[in-house]
Parts: sequence; C-alpha cells; structure tokens
Amino acid sequence: MLIRLAYDIQFDLPCEVAMVTLLNVHPSRAKDLLEPDEVHTEPELKVSSYIDSFGNRCARFVAPAGRLKLRSTTLIRDSGEPDPVNLSARECAVGDLPNEILSYLLNSRYCEVDRFSNIAFELFGWTKPGWERVKAICDWVHSKVTFNYGQARPTKTALDVFTERVGVCRDFQHLAITFCRALNIPARYATGYLGDFGVPVNGAMDFSAWFEVYLEDRWWTFDARHNFPRIGRVLMATGRDASDVALTTSFGRADLCHFFVVTEEETKAPESRTAAEADSSIPA
Amino acid sequence: MLIRLAYDIQFDLPCEVAMVTLLNVHPSRAKDLLEPDEVHTEPELKVSSYIDSFGNRCARFVAPAGRLKLRSTTLIRDSGEPDPVNLSARECAVGDLPNEILSYLLNSRYCEVDRFSNIAFELFGWTKPGWERVKAICDWVHSKVTFNYGQARPTKTALDVFTERVGVCRDFQHLAITFCRALNIPARYATGYLGDFGVPVNGAMDFSAWFEVYLEDRWWTFDARHNFPRIGRVLMATGRDASDVALTTSFGRADLCHFFVVTEEETKAPESRTAAEADSSIPA
Amino acid sequence: MLIRLAYDIQFDLPCEVAMVTLLNVHPSRAKDLLEPDEVHTEPELKVSSYIDSFGNRCARFVAPAGRLKLRSTTLIRDSGEPDPVNLSARECAVGDLPNEILSYLLNSRYCEVDRFSNIAFELFGWTKPGWERVKAICDWVHSKVTFNYGQARPTKTALDVFTERVGVCRDFQHLAITFCRALNIPARYATGYLGDFGVPVNGAMDFSAWFEVYLEDRWWTFDARHNFPRIGRVLMATGRDASDVALTTSFGRADLCHFFVVTEEETKAPESRTAAEADSSIPA
Amino acid sequence: MLIRLAYDIQFDLPCEVAMVTLLNVHPSRAKDLLEPDEVHTEPELKVSSYIDSFGNRCARFVAPAGRLKLRSTTLIRDSGEPDPVNLSARECAVGDLPNEILSYLLNSRYCEVDRFSNIAFELFGWTKPGWERVKAICDWVHSKVTFNYGQARPTKTALDVFTERVGVCRDFQHLAITFCRALNIPARYATGYLGDFGVPVNGAMDFSAWFEVYLEDRWWTFDARHNFPRIGRVLMATGRDASDVALTTSFGRADLCHFFVVTEEETKAPESRTAAEADSSIPA
Repeated sequence: MLIRLAYDIQFDLPCEVAMVTLLNVHPSRAKDLLEPDEVHTEPELKVSSYIDSFGNRCARFVAPAGRLKLRSTTLIRDSGEPDPVNLSARECAVGDLPNEILSYLLNSRYCEVDRFSNIAFELFGWTKPGWERVKAICDWVHSKVTFNYGQARPTKTALDVFTERVGVCRDFQHLAITFCRALNIPARYATGYLGDFGVPVNGAMDFSAWFEVYLEDRWWTFDARHNFPRIGRVLMATGRDASDVALTTSFGRADLCHFFVVTEEETKAPESRTAAEADSSIPA
Repeated sequence: MLIRLAYDIQFDLPCEVAMVTLLNVHPSRAKDLLEPDEVHTEPELKVSSYIDSFGNRCARFVAPAGRLKLRSTTLIRDSGEPDPVNLSARECAVGDLPNEILSYLLNSRYCEVDRFSNIAFELFGWTKPGWERVKAICDWVHSKVTFNYGQARPTKTALDVFTERVGVCRDFQHLAITFCRALNIPARYATGYLGDFGVPVNGAMDFSAWFEVYLEDRWWTFDARHNFPRIGRVLMATGRDASDVALTTSFGRADLCHFFVVTEEETKAPESRTAAEADSSIPA
Repeated sequence: MLIRLAYDIQFDLPCEVAMVTLLNVHPSRAKDLLEPDEVHTEPELKVSSYIDSFGNRCARFVAPAGRLKLRSTTLIRDSGEPDPVNLSARECAVGDLPNEILSYLLNSRYCEVDRFSNIAFELFGWTKPGWERVKAICDWVHSKVTFNYGQARPTKTALDVFTERVGVCRDFQHLAITFCRALNIPARYATGYLGDFGVPVNGAMDFSAWFEVYLEDRWWTFDARHNFPRIGRVLMATGRDASDVALTTSFGRADLCHFFVVTEEETKAPESRTAAEADSSIPA
Repeated sequence: MLIRLAYDIQFDLPCEVAMVTLLNVHPSRAKDLLEPDEVHTEPELKVSSYIDSFGNRCARFVAPAGRLKLRSTTLIRDSGEPDPVNLSARECAVGDLPNEILSYLLNSRYCEVDRFSNIAFELFGWTKPGWERVKAICDWVHSKVTFNYGQARPTKTALDVFTERVGVCRDFQHLAITFCRALNIPARYATGYLGDFGVPVNGAMDFSAWFEVYLEDRWWTFDARHNFPRIGRVLMATGRDASDVALTTSFGRADLCHFFVVTEEETKAPESRTAAEADSSIPA
C-alpha cells in the first residue's frame, strides 16, 4: 500500500521568529519513503535538520515577518496492516527495564503521574497486568472522554481531562499515558499521520496523536481516542507528552492562518508521477 | 581546596522496590575526584550505573523489603573559587542556539512556561537582555519568595511559587527557570552539594538546588535562593526541572527514615586517610 | 428611555430535572418595570419565585424530559444615563465597612483572592486608593485580556485568566474582582442585560457581566470588559462571582439548544402595544 | 453534661488591622450556655457583634500594631449524646428542597463540584441514595485520606485532597462535601469544639471541622475525619466551606504566635466556680 502524505501550514508572523518543526516522518520509517521528505518554506529559508534527544527528526529555521508557508508532500510504502495486537505481552518489572526506558515512567508537563497514583490503582489495580491492563485503561478513557474540538486548550493536563471528560486526541492519550505510568508501565506520546483507511471519513483531516506502551521488550501502539487497531499510521515523533513533540514551536508570536493535511492511498504507481502532479496535491 | 562529601540516606521498604538514584558526582567533575564515588547499599545489592539522556550518572538497583541504607563518602578537589560572574555575557538568539539547547526553552513538569509568557515579559521585558536580565530575575525571586522547609510539597509548580511566595530551594529555582524560558533564555535545573564555605551555618546540611543559564556559548551557574556567588558547589545532575533529577526515585513505596548529608573542607592531605577514618564520617 | 428585554432559551432534557433560574430583573429595578416580568415555560410548569441570600429574584421548577423553552419579554424604563462616575469616591477602611459587605472581600469559587495578594499589591499598590485604583485595575485587565468566545470554559478562574489572558466578559470581571478584593476593596459580580446603545453592534446579543465595587457608602458599576460608562444596563443579579448567579442551574443534564436575547430601545409608547406584538419579538 | 470551652489565640500585628472572628458558639446553641460567651481582647478593643448571612455570630474589631490576645472561656450544657444516626433518612429531590438549601449544592472556593460530577457518580452512583450514600462517601474519604498536620495548606481544594490523599480535618470534610453536592445532596461545612469524650487523647487540642448533610427535612452531622458518632460537638459556625467560616480573618498581616484551645467536661457544679478559677483555665 502506498500512502500520499502532504501538509500546507501557514502562519502570519508579526516579527522575525525562530521556529522548530517536527513535521518529518520519523527516522524509523525513513526506509519506507519513496520520495524526499523535506519541509519547503515560502519564503525560501535556510532550514537545518537534526535529531533530538528522543530520536525525532527536527527542522529549524528563522522566518522573517510576514506570511510563512510550510509545505511538503511525500510518498510512503506501508504494510497496510492494522496496529499489531499481542494479548499475551507482559509487563516488564521496573528493575528489568532498559535504562533508556525509565524516563517514560516519570512526570511530564501534561502527565501529572504523582497526582494519579492512587486513582490509577483504584481504577485498574484489579486488572491483569500486561496488555489487558493497558487495554482496560484505553477502554476506560475511550468510554469516559468525549471528543470535542472546541474544548481543546494548550494548557489542558491529564488531570483536567480526568475531571472535564472532554478533549481532542492528545487529551485522550495524555490521560491514558498518565494512568499507565502511575501503574509503572512505561508510556510515551506519539504523533503522526493517520488516514481514514477502512473507517468512515468525518470532516477535514488533521495530524493525529496516539501513544506507545513498553511491554515485553518493545513499544506497542495504543490509541485511547479510536481504541481499535488502525491501518496506515505514519509516525512523525515520540516524546514524553505533547510538550516534547509540538509539530511547530515558535519562539515568538506566530498566528496560524491556514492548516491543511492529507493522508490518502495512492493508487497510481509512484514511478509515473511527475513533480507537477505531486505539487498539485497541495492546495494553493 | 579539598571537599569531603558524604551522605547516609535510609528507607523503610514494605515491599521489594526498584530504585534509581542520582547521587553520584556529575561526570563533568569526575576528573576532580580523589576517591571512588560509588553508592554503597546495605544490604549489599547489585547496582548498575548508566548515563541518562541529560548526561547524568545514575545508579539503579532492586531493593528487598526492609531497611535500605544508601551511603557514600568521597573526596573532591575544588578550585575554591566562587561561581563565575560575567556581566557582559549576552543572550544567544534562539536561531543561533545549538540544537541540544533548544529543549531548555520548553515547558516541563514544574515549569509552566506557557502560563508565564505575559507575566515574565511584564516583569522583566524592560531589563537589559543577557546577564543583567537573568540577575534581575534572580533578584526578584530572591526578594519575593520566603524560604520555609515546612512549605515544601512534591507537586508545587512555578505558578504555585509565584502565587504562594514561599518554598524551598528547588521552588526558588523553578520560578527563576520558568521566567528565563518564558523570555527565550535557556535554563536548566541543577542539583548537588553546597557547603557552607564562607557563610554562617544554619542547621543541618542538605543537598542543594541551583540553576544554569545558557548565555554566550556556555552554561552559567545562578542561584535564586542564595543569590550570590558561592564557593564549593559540587554538581550532581542537571535536567529540565526537579522531576528529571530526583535524587532517588522509587517505583513503589519507600519511606524515608534517615537523611544525612555533609560537605566540608578536608584539611588533612587525602593520602593520609585510612578507610576506617573515611567510614567514621558517616554516622551509624 | 424605554428598553425592550426578551429572551428565548431552550434546552433538551433527557430526564426530568430541577432547575433554578436567575432570569428576572433585579428587585432593585422592579419599580422601573412597565410590563410583568415572569419566566414563561413551555411546557407550562409550576414555577415558584423566591429571593436568594444575595437579594436576587430566583425562579425554580422541575421540568420533564423533552424540549424545555424558557421565554419572557418585558419593558423597562431607564434613565438613559451612562454608568455614574465619581473620581473622588474613597475606599472605606475595612473596619468601617457595613457587616454585610465584608463577605465581598473573601475568596470565592472563581476568585482566588489568597493567591493574588502579592500580585495585586505589586501591580496596583502604588496607585491612589479609591476610584483611581479600581480604574487602574480595570484599565490593566481591559488592556491585557483579549476577548474570545471560543476560549470560554466553565472552570476558568481568575488565576487562569491572569495567565491565559483571554476569555469572555465574565472572565474579565473575575480577574478585576479578585484584584480588588486582594487590595481590601469589596467587589461583587453582576449580570444583566446590556444593550448596544451608542456603540457599534457586533454580532448576536448575549447577557452581559460586569462588576460592582463598594466605595464611600455604596456600590458602583465597573466593567473591565468594556471599560467605559455604558447606557442601559439592566441588572438581573449580583453575587460573589459567576458561580452564585448562573442564569440557569440544572441539577441534572440539560443540553442548551437555542439561545436568544435581545435588548433594544422601544420607540413606540408602551400603552399601544398588544400582547401579540410583544410575543412577536420572540422568534419561534 | 457540662463542657468547659476556652481558647487563647495570639497574634503579632506589624500594623493596625481589621479582623473578623467566628469564635462564638453558634446561635443555635445559645440556649445551652451557662456563662457569657464573648471574645476578650487584650488590649481591650471595641468589639461589635453581628450575624452573618449563614446565621453565624461574628465579632469584628480593629486591632492596633503589637501583640493581640483573643481569649474566652464559657460553659455549655450538652446532652452527652453522640451524633444522631438515622439510617432511613432519605434524600430530598432537588425540586423539593427549601429555597435556602439550594446554594449548598453549588461550587464554592474549596469545593469544585463541577470537576467532580463524573468522579462522584462513578464512585458512589451505585450506592443506595440517602443516609447510606453519605455514609459510603464518609467511609471512602476516611479510608483513603491520611491525617497529617504537616500537609495542611490554605489553598488546598477538594481536588487536591482527592489526588494527594493527605490533609487535616477540614480537607477530609471538603472532599466529602464535594462528593455529596456532585450527587445533588446538599452539604455544608461546620466548625466548632470537639472534646475527646470517650476517645483516647492524642496531642494538643484544636478546633475541629465536620460537615452537615441535608436529608429528609433537616441537617445531620457527619464527620469524614473521625467517621463515627462523637459526643460533645459544640457548633460555632456553618458555611459552604472553610472560606466562609475562617475562625479569624485578618484584612492585613497578622502572624499567629500562640494557639490554645480546650474542651473538657466540667465536673464541678457551675455555680461554685469563681471568676478566678475560670481564668485559671487559660494559660498566661
């Protein structure tokens, strides 16, 4: 299966501003890319790329005052398989976790693990450790929290989600991540493209958030928002929570004025595409 | 100048528990150590050491139920010079910061940078950028916040410190760090030993927290709690805030029952010390 | 000047639910009413009226499952004068305040006075006590906070407004009230009709919030949202904050599905109106 | 049974300050008083008394800079009976509650009812409405929250208690009150004397907090801190939460420097006491 990825994000900048973006496909998926994956800026800027401490590919640049357009399109090969499920995956005792996994048990900006230790134990302490416990957490969050774009806000933490019971996809994952960590299960936030493959489309596309849980000896994909195995996730970045993997971070004012993302199956063979066609998938 | 460092920290553990400690001297000071620097556990445990993503030396182990004693003593050579001051150190434009410094501009568990952007600008936007601005921040925090051991709590954030105006050393630094980041100045939390060299002693010793600010092309030490250049800081760890560099993290219940730290000048030549003498500096 | 007041508020109720409304004109304005001022419910319900501990006229009833319509229209005589201004109005020493005023100095749900004592003093402690200080508070809030309907939420407190700097009219008033109380100036929340008399109309009408401050020997109207003397306020209720004077409180689920308010000058003489005409001002 | 009540509370005042105290026995118990119940101030001040909107007897005065002593002793007749228990007391439908009870269903400073509606329903929605449900709430709070004087702080809300699970008596009651209100059961905060009659004494005496719940057609005493019927409560004040009934409120700085309260059975007949003896129960 071939998936066409593209975005067109535009800002009005009152002043020159330094920005960092996490808009590239994750290095773990680089082998699947069939076209280059670069941020194109308009005006054309000197963009430098680097890998952050979480292993994500970042781009940074300094943009002048005025309209800034960030655009890209690329093509990626995907297995077309849904998220793997392994009902028998066991929790790893904390003492046996690899060193680099330990920090995914701690507090982070949006995940107040320390405030949830009793709550998490009361809600999920009775469940069978491992995959089943994580699934119970996802089921709980999925059934208790209502999706509502209008109720998003940048300061909403897991505790806010727990009391307000409404939010956007990142809020679902923050609450689930916090429950996991409070139960000594390493969990991290993930962001990327998620097409509507095999599900009814509802409205404009957006990037999506999900989360990953460390069971047995690897990370597994979970998604408390959708709560069933999806096809065609394309990972962009992972971190402790949304604070680590903001798609764009502006060190100064930047007013978002246009936002377009698309993820769809490409039915033509990639060889036959021309640059012109590729461009045409980005709206003016 | 030679500084004797020692601690004796004891926990009662109701059950087996995995722990991570950040009780070693920071790798950047390893060259100054004149004696080994290892965590001794009683009962004797298999302790493994590693460097975390911030560059700190961590130790980890799994402790059985019962009393756990963590003890160490070591000797370090110190310049005996106070914290360097460079009034002409300039802020680095965000666009010119090294990649690995950027994350010290973001939100973290105890530092709600996003909630302080207006407040910080209103309080300090008029000050001269660079060393002077950071000094203005330290002066403000130092003069507005009152030290009180009884008002510590593990969930206190920079915003709590800003409204309550009382706390312990970590609270002072969290507020100052948050102000810096809100003004696009990279800042990170530091923890270590701080002897009472040249200052009147008041009460039992403790580990201390301070913070570091990136100006020009390096990190500089600041301390909103004491707010003057001190002699004999021995760095143990740096991170975004106290959440990253807890001296001990227990993944399960651990009740602190004894806490002793000492930092004092060693006047004897180190060669003449015997193992027995070294041990005698740790209370039973 | 004659002002036509009307509202039409509708809910979908999944179950029977008890409700309390604060939709009547305040008893202090009863003498100016030229038509009856009653809540009409559809279906027709047994509505009982009472005066709460703040002196507001409340209505209560139990509504069955289904669509509930609350409608009213009335006519009130108004001076047509803008809010009075008295630049020389002095603060009353706390020791001289009437007993019943003291509670307007305390914390309330949305006004964390205790967390603002230092902040308020730092921002406004230098201003001249009395009218000038309250005006300085209003000017500050008015200039620092941005109006945005999309950023309203029921749990937003004064501290949230102080850090987020965005909100709806009630948020402006909560922050100003909290500053006043933190400086020992009694302040209370007010809600009512506010027509667009003498100001350009922008969008659909809504009820409005303002606040009152006790100076000299009486309450004065202030409005940190609009921040200039307005014509034609028709007071409905006062309380310590929005929690005390919610227009409708449902003790169970009630989904708002229609909301219409109008406040406009009536140019015809009231005698010539008929019941039919009165009804026609309410949309079906 | 006769109970001797006395307190001696002292402040250091850097400046003149207005104060309000709620240190009198509640008017509902006035009929049981066998001696006068007045606040004695040293220096002697003009103290005026009034009843607040909750029906509590308040005293107010303006104290000069320097040491302020507030002292009183009085004697009250008590039934010696434990708090009444009525397992069959039913909840009153909101629609049937008396008007003046409705406000005890709403949010207040320390009781974020709106943030608890789902949590309360999940924890207690399955319990039998009425006395049993309130008892289930008290049992939960009593078993989950740990008493610790060192963990008190003036800004701690019900949500903080829910996540931190530690606090003093007022914190227990705030959480229980909030659960009740979230389930549409009117609840209010109560403060007063509580002797150690029939229970082992542990440490210095203090005033106590408990709460009242409206069931059937009256208020009933509950106490999530002690959670069993106690003998000898002497009510001083009720309000929505601790914010309404602070024992002393200072409108300016007042540093508490001495605090002594006593509640004990008086075995002598009251007639035989002399003024000198009464005084001797107050420490110098």
